[in-house]
Amino acid sequence: MASKAFQEYYPEYFSHCYGCGTLNQDGLQIKSYWDGTESVCYHEPSPRHTAIPGFVYGGLIASLIDCHSTGTAAAAAYRAEGREMNTDPPLRFLTASLHVDYLRPTPIEGRLEVRATVKEVKGRKVVITSKLIAAGDVCAVGEVVAVQVPEHLIPGVTAKS
Amino acid sequence: MASKAFQEYYPEYFSHCYGCGTLNQDGLQIKSYWDGTESVCYHEPSPRHTAIPGFVYGGLIASLIDCHSTGTAAAAAYRAEGREMNTDPPLRFLTASLHVDYLRPTPIEGRLEVRATVKEVKGRKVVITSKLIAAGDVCAVGEVVAVQVPEHLIPGVTAKS
Repeated sequence: MASKAFQEYYPEYFSHCYGCGTLNQDGLQIKSYWDGTESVCYHEPSPRHTAIPGFVYGGLIASLIDCHSTGTAAAAAYRAEGREMNTDPPLRFLTASLHVDYLRPTPIEGRLEVRATVKEVKGRKVVITSKLIAAGDVCAVGEVVAVQVPEHLIPGVTAKS
Repeated sequence: MASKAFQEYYPEYFSHCYGCGTLNQDGLQIKSYWDGTESVCYHEPSPRHTAIPGFVYGGLIASLIDCHSTGTAAAAAYRAEGREMNTDPPLRFLTASLHVDYLRPTPIEGRLEVRATVKEVKGRKVVITSKLIAAGDVCAVGEVVAVQVPEHLIPGVTAKS
């Protein structure tokens, strides 16, 4: 895996996100990396993110899938343009829709893994599918439709190298 | 509106949820009420729940829709049985699937409102649709398929009156 996460390339304006912003000290600090054609992120849930005792809160699962997918969408868009993530103009994606199927309760002990696949890159839209794995089981699957943020809505940013 | 929220009737075992558990001091403490045939909850986002500066994190929106919908599913199931929420056996629902369409950025200043409608009550399954409103605009819409937790998975609980 690369040493630098997708989110570490985000311009400062996009680094305040509760899910994945490197500047949000109270946030989840989700970090995503390529692993071949898939992308992966890991997260160790805090005890506060309980659903019922022993199991992970579904909103945390949705959050992991959401931010990992928008990060993967950005990385996929750079790949589609044959560019590195530290080149201008920066590409950043927002969530148009999020779908999660919860297949089984997700144990809160241990590390969660989210693996994502790029289903489609079409114009300014990227579709990402993903699965959340805990203790060897796929506990949830997700699909995110991400759309590229228009350049004029990104205030004075350049790529972070 | 009733003086007591749906979530305040949950048995203790179900009161640890990060989204809506009354016993989770670090959680969102979502509280849902009937308002005629709709249900409603309100939430004032914390600054930490930022997406980009000035706007609400999508994972928080998903969380509000999720817990408000499972709460509404429980309340709807009691209504369908013609029972009050403080009667046994307690009914509690988990999320089978969550879908959110993000229609526009949601301003973080002020109070968010989630209004939900019971689309279907069929056996142990309840489908809830919802909209999230901020500053007078519908910023997101959601659909949750909730399923009733089997009684044998609820450890020794009775209703909370």
